[in-house]
Amino acid sequence: MDIVAQMKKFVEPKSVAILGVSRTPMTIKGTTLDVLTNLINQGYQGKIYPIHPQASEIQGLKAYASIAEAPADIDLAVVNLPRHLVPGIVKECVTKGIKAITIVTQGFADAADDEGKQLQREIDDIITGTDTRVLGPNSLGTINANINFSSSFIGAQIEKIPVGFMCQTGIFFLDLPGLKLLGKAIDLGNGSDVHFGDGLEYYGNDAETKVVGLHIEGMRDASRFLEQAHRVTRKKPVVALKIGRSEQAAQAAQSHTGSLAGKGEIWDAALKQAGVIRVGDIEELNDTIRAFCMLPLMRGRRIGIVTFTGGFGVICIDACQRCGLEVARLSPATIERLSAFYPSWQGVSNPVDIWPAIMVTRKISLFEVQKIATEALLDDAGVDAVLCILGVYGSSFDIELHQLVKEAAKSHPAKPLVFYLYRHPVTEVKDKLESKGGTMVFASPERAIRALGHLADYSDFRMKL
Amino acid sequence: MDIVAQMKKFVEPKSVAILGVSRTPMTIKGTTLDVLTNLINQGYQGKIYPIHPQASEIQGLKAYASIAEAPADIDLAVVNLPRHLVPGIVKECVTKGIKAITIVTQGFADAADDEGKQLQREIDDIITGTDTRVLGPNSLGTINANINFSSSFIGAQIEKIPVGFMCQTGIFFLDLPGLKLLGKAIDLGNGSDVHFGDGLEYYGNDAETKVVGLHIEGMRDASRFLEQAHRVTRKKPVVALKIGRSEQAAQAAQSHTGSLAGKGEIWDAALKQAGVIRVGDIEELNDTIRAFCMLPLMRGRRIGIVTFTGGFGVICIDACQRCGLEVARLSPATIERLSAFYPSWQGVSNPVDIWPAIMVTRKISLFEVQKIATEALLDDAGVDAVLCILGVYGSSFDIELHQLVKEAAKSHPAKPLVFYLYRHPVTEVKDKLESKGGTMVFASPERAIRALGHLADYSDFRMKL
Repeated sequence: MDIVAQMKKFVEPKSVAILGVSRTPMTIKGTTLDVLTNLINQGYQGKIYPIHPQASEIQGLKAYASIAEAPADIDLAVVNLPRHLVPGIVKECVTKGIKAITIVTQGFADAADDEGKQLQREIDDIITGTDTRVLGPNSLGTINANINFSSSFIGAQIEKIPVGFMCQTGIFFLDLPGLKLLGKAIDLGNGSDVHFGDGLEYYGNDAETKVVGLHIEGMRDASRFLEQAHRVTRKKPVVALKIGRSEQAAQAAQSHTGSLAGKGEIWDAALKQAGVIRVGDIEELNDTIRAFCMLPLMRGRRIGIVTFTGGFGVICIDACQRCGLEVARLSPATIERLSAFYPSWQGVSNPVDIWPAIMVTRKISLFEVQKIATEALLDDAGVDAVLCILGVYGSSFDIELHQLVKEAAKSHPAKPLVFYLYRHPVTEVKDKLESKGGTMVFASPERAIRALGHLADYSDFRMKL
Repeated sequence: MDIVAQMKKFVEPKSVAILGVSRTPMTIKGTTLDVLTNLINQGYQGKIYPIHPQASEIQGLKAYASIAEAPADIDLAVVNLPRHLVPGIVKECVTKGIKAITIVTQGFADAADDEGKQLQREIDDIITGTDTRVLGPNSLGTINANINFSSSFIGAQIEKIPVGFMCQTGIFFLDLPGLKLLGKAIDLGNGSDVHFGDGLEYYGNDAETKVVGLHIEGMRDASRFLEQAHRVTRKKPVVALKIGRSEQAAQAAQSHTGSLAGKGEIWDAALKQAGVIRVGDIEELNDTIRAFCMLPLMRGRRIGIVTFTGGFGVICIDACQRCGLEVARLSPATIERLSAFYPSWQGVSNPVDIWPAIMVTRKISLFEVQKIATEALLDDAGVDAVLCILGVYGSSFDIELHQLVKEAAKSHPAKPLVFYLYRHPVTEVKDKLESKGGTMVFASPERAIRALGHLADYSDFRMKL
């Protein structure tokens, strides 16, 4: 069976059988830890077949005593049973003709004992030579926000964004503060069968996925993965957080997912050659994925900065140097436009410090000053992206900024326009503005520049193809 | 006059004259930009003398036609008048015997024209040989949360924390998202007179200041500053964000505050030798200052990690390597304590992955599992700090964690205990837990480890003295 079609069974299932479902779902302090409950709560529209030896109905759904007795049209089986039962269940699924099995259970290659490794070998033997693929064990499975699907037994934070994420830990499926990554997602868990190369081939061919995000501890299928990466990065950005640089982390990855981490330098070189964008921590992973998702590429390295504060302007210049961006040299026309409302004593240069103008220019409003400055920079042919560092003044601030973003997207569709905002209520303005699309509000000016740097790097990579 | 006594006039004023106060305060979109209004709103208890040529009363306070006619007991004059008026006013203040003048007005050494530089020279000449010191120009002045004082014309985000901050941009005085730095603060602005060495000497001798934070673009008094830094770092941590590493940033700093940035490498060496903790961006600045403020020093480099997720455990190991920390080797006693509730298949090692135990141990609660694991690590003589990576489960989560923090502070006062939390409502739990003191909740596991690394580095520096 074609791997893309196979992966669709995992990520776009039309019907799911759940093995290891309880009549009374397990809870921890009021949180239900149950695949079925979450699936229903999220509004999944596909068919759900709970499998339970005694129950005839669970949570209003007809239950089946065994996988053999369930209907034939099962795309995906999600297995969350004690580990010694898993090989037997996998065998039943194969017999039933199920092509995709997610194993949630822990304690296989990730276990310290021999039994876990033995059970893993049994599973491997059962699926060898069949059309059935296994995701996991030790996996929360898959997510697809477009069909409200998630096989996670803990409520996942999903969002209809064109991001395909793949990871080796289920933690990314959960509600992490400040992180929004999951449009579609695959938790490889131990990755005993389905691995990075498979998921990447699926995302590469998936029209709904515009950006691919990866959390990599280590992998068995490095050459297949890199081959796919070479192909996919020609079409869409692939952003990777590669863990396990240190010897100790590599060892821990081994016991966490049973995979080998490999030498840091080799990975650096291989990922770079494949056009993969490598990031250093989870915040950079999030910022970068979302930037690719929400912004146009930066078609050059020259940034224009509009700022209420000279001090953060200087901070930005240092950040640009770190990220390989240039502070744009303004054209004479731009300087002339800005001079019109600058106080006479202030020289015009980039970063464009508009606070003195706001203080002295009483003829035009605060918003007009920042609008004129932003537009002047966007209009400058020597500027490839604009970062605005602004204080939140007035309750309609998000509406005004959105207007600016909308006009910029129309007049300069190829230039990212992003923000760092301060003063209360930043979070509210950020959420409203970002929800309308077309821009991002970053947690710090340095993080804004770091993300723009990745946009410029990838644009460069694509242009050189 | 002794510089410490002089700086007290700026930071601990008992009485303030305000020059450049309006009968109708300037507003931008509903925000009042007015020193007097903010001073009243913040509840400053000292005497306030508004100076205004016509008004006899402003905002319920008696106003004076000139500084000469105001009462004699003025500790500090805050000047926010058009620049050409400033030298004359400074002269009046000197004549009056005022020892501290904050100049808010922009357009002196920071200006592109000759007039600004000429006006600056006039001010310099006026104060030379007198007992009067000038803060600024181009400064928002000073903050002291202990007496509800701030000379900022925009509402500042102040908090009663033992942090003394000093910066070359007023932006740090404002409500920056996620940044809380201001117990006491000095905005040097252009730093034409009062400079880093003066502020540092004050903070070094100030019993209310336990941590000093610095934003440095460049300085004129480098040797005096470094001499003070050598002294102060022996008593309390000094954390610095040094900007202007790149040539272009150094030039921009020149036009922003008129100060010279100096070579990056020289600064690196000089700050390190002086025991100053150098940070790379504003988020690290905030994390590090708050860590010194809220946590004990880390008396060694060995970290213990309790985690709901093996994946983030591996991420932490890499982060430790970057920050010079070691993942602690657990003692046999600790391993025995943890084994008691681990599933039989799981080996015990650090990071301590307690999720499998939570899943299989139905005899004790989620909270008990994390409590036993945390205490086991704290009790281990080979562990110098503990980071817990936990999901928020249950509404009393902050109360339970606070109990843990309180007990840890009692039984292990020398070991920092910090958290990375996920799942809703993280922000609420974080705010409640941190408000009770004794711990910090970080935005990412990598940032937690980076901050702990600084605690260990400084402890090391102090022990080698």
